[in-house]
Amino acid sequence: MAADPLVVSVPDPEYAEALADLDGVDALVWDMEGPHPRGAEIRLAVMPYMTKLRLADVTPGLDSLEVVQLQSAGYEHFVDDLPDGVTLCNAAGVHDASTAELALTLVLASIREIPAFAASQARSTWEPLRLRSSLADRRVLVVGYGQIGRAIVRRLEPFEVAITVVASRARAGDDLVPHVHGIDELPDLLPDQDVVVVIVPLTDATRGLFDAQMLGRMRDGALLVNVARGAVVDTDALVEACSSGRLRAALDVTDPEPLPEGHPLWTAPGVLITPHVGGATEAMRPRAIALVRRQVEALRSGARVDNAVAGPLSAP
Amino acid sequence: MAADPLVVSVPDPEYAEALADLDGVDALVWDMEGPHPRGAEIRLAVMPYMTKLRLADVTPGLDSLEVVQLQSAGYEHFVDDLPDGVTLCNAAGVHDASTAELALTLVLASIREIPAFAASQARSTWEPLRLRSSLADRRVLVVGYGQIGRAIVRRLEPFEVAITVVASRARAGDDLVPHVHGIDELPDLLPDQDVVVVIVPLTDATRGLFDAQMLGRMRDGALLVNVARGAVVDTDALVEACSSGRLRAALDVTDPEPLPEGHPLWTAPGVLITPHVGGATEAMRPRAIALVRRQVEALRSGARVDNAVAGPLSAP
Repeated sequence: MAADPLVVSVPDPEYAEALADLDGVDALVWDMEGPHPRGAEIRLAVMPYMTKLRLADVTPGLDSLEVVQLQSAGYEHFVDDLPDGVTLCNAAGVHDASTAELALTLVLASIREIPAFAASQARSTWEPLRLRSSLADRRVLVVGYGQIGRAIVRRLEPFEVAITVVASRARAGDDLVPHVHGIDELPDLLPDQDVVVVIVPLTDATRGLFDAQMLGRMRDGALLVNVARGAVVDTDALVEACSSGRLRAALDVTDPEPLPEGHPLWTAPGVLITPHVGGATEAMRPRAIALVRRQVEALRSGARVDNAVAGPLSAP
Repeated sequence: MAADPLVVSVPDPEYAEALADLDGVDALVWDMEGPHPRGAEIRLAVMPYMTKLRLADVTPGLDSLEVVQLQSAGYEHFVDDLPDGVTLCNAAGVHDASTAELALTLVLASIREIPAFAASQARSTWEPLRLRSSLADRRVLVVGYGQIGRAIVRRLEPFEVAITVVASRARAGDDLVPHVHGIDELPDLLPDQDVVVVIVPLTDATRGLFDAQMLGRMRDGALLVNVARGAVVDTDALVEACSSGRLRAALDVTDPEPLPEGHPLWTAPGVLITPHVGGATEAMRPRAIALVRRQVEALRSGARVDNAVAGPLSAP
């Protein structure tokens, strides 16, 4: 007698197709906008990407639910209404390549003046020769040294820069850096840095971390790159620091977000803004599918699921 | 009795200062716009960067001249009037970091849509969420595998891409790539590539290499990045391929150059243009000074100068 199939819900047909070759798995396409007729059978539910849905709206009737798989690294606003006995898994790893790639894009585009050249191009103007700035030989500080921080450092390494990293606590280095500094050292490290890339999670400890005082520790002309969350930086203080021409910034995230029309950050000099596109690329899909496949295999074989951040399977 | 000092001419005071600590070296500042009173003593002359001067205008009266040091990698237009007995050295290596960095900048800025986001920013517009393109998972072909080609591959490597390289002749691979393809394989390699980065020297063999037929081998939506010389690409054919929306391009060099106002390349869709800024950055100066210091040491000790491309010391 064959075992019952493992019923999994996925947000779109492409996902279902990517699981089709797995024996004993029944992948239902469910966008979660209304109940699914087979909801009571679902053991693993994959949430849509960047959804506004809350678990309290989605989980009633999912009587077999064991695991909720998010497609984002952030999971804070799903923890409160996670049903008893259900494990929440985030998508750590899925967005690393794409987000780290955007961090490098923002660093390079700012330093090598791509927005200014694009504006010159729109005026059919060939700018005259002069020595311009380079990333090479600069001192770069990466604030936040989780998986994405490491992915950023890996991509920075061949650019002939001096890299320093900061995490929540000081610790020994690894294959990429000789030492990991603690966040308490940040004020002392900032004055030496030409480029500061922020990729910390948003927590009570990091909210407003880059306030007027911390921005004031950065050297004149330095570049602040934020690929973390907008609220890690005090927007008013940043607008002031950039408006005076003292600092530059490249931001994939802002506070508020979306940035409203007429907000002074749009027009502050030396500021480049992308509309939170760090993780949302074609690089995400194959990595998300690979994660869901690993989770399915884990559930079938009784092994541990990856990335459990809350619920019974997340215990240390 | 002290030996006579080695007299070197350098184009500006910053250079002279950077050589000041070398014993037995007399560094004269000479921009070469007129004769230097001590011209007859100069044994090593460093040319200004991106100069329009010809050696025939500069070398008369330099009776002790042994080596002319260029600050560019290109040297073709200096060979014809190189005086007998004088060795010409180019600046191979000096621009690698800066040019490779710009190649990555152009690739990333194009794929991650920086020019479009900068335009949206100018309109205070936050673009809506959708899955966008990434460099990760793409197939990248680097055409030209000298020092700068290698510097480009080194920087591409951590981006989770599939890298293929082409040089003038097929040869065994190295620490970066398993195999180096020959230029004769280019037509067969092109259809599989998402990104093609061109960094070949301009020679009779490479002039017009990317003509209508070769561009026609590229796949729909592919990106051509030119950090070599404008004339390696047939401009009319490229304008046509981009105007139809079939190809995209990111160009640090154009043909003609500077690109005149009103040229259709300025406004072709999907084309990003920077005004030949690949090598002209702050990264150049310390590397140029390090090269001149090595050359000075070589002349003093009777060792071989680096980068000799013509004249008596260039013999194999």
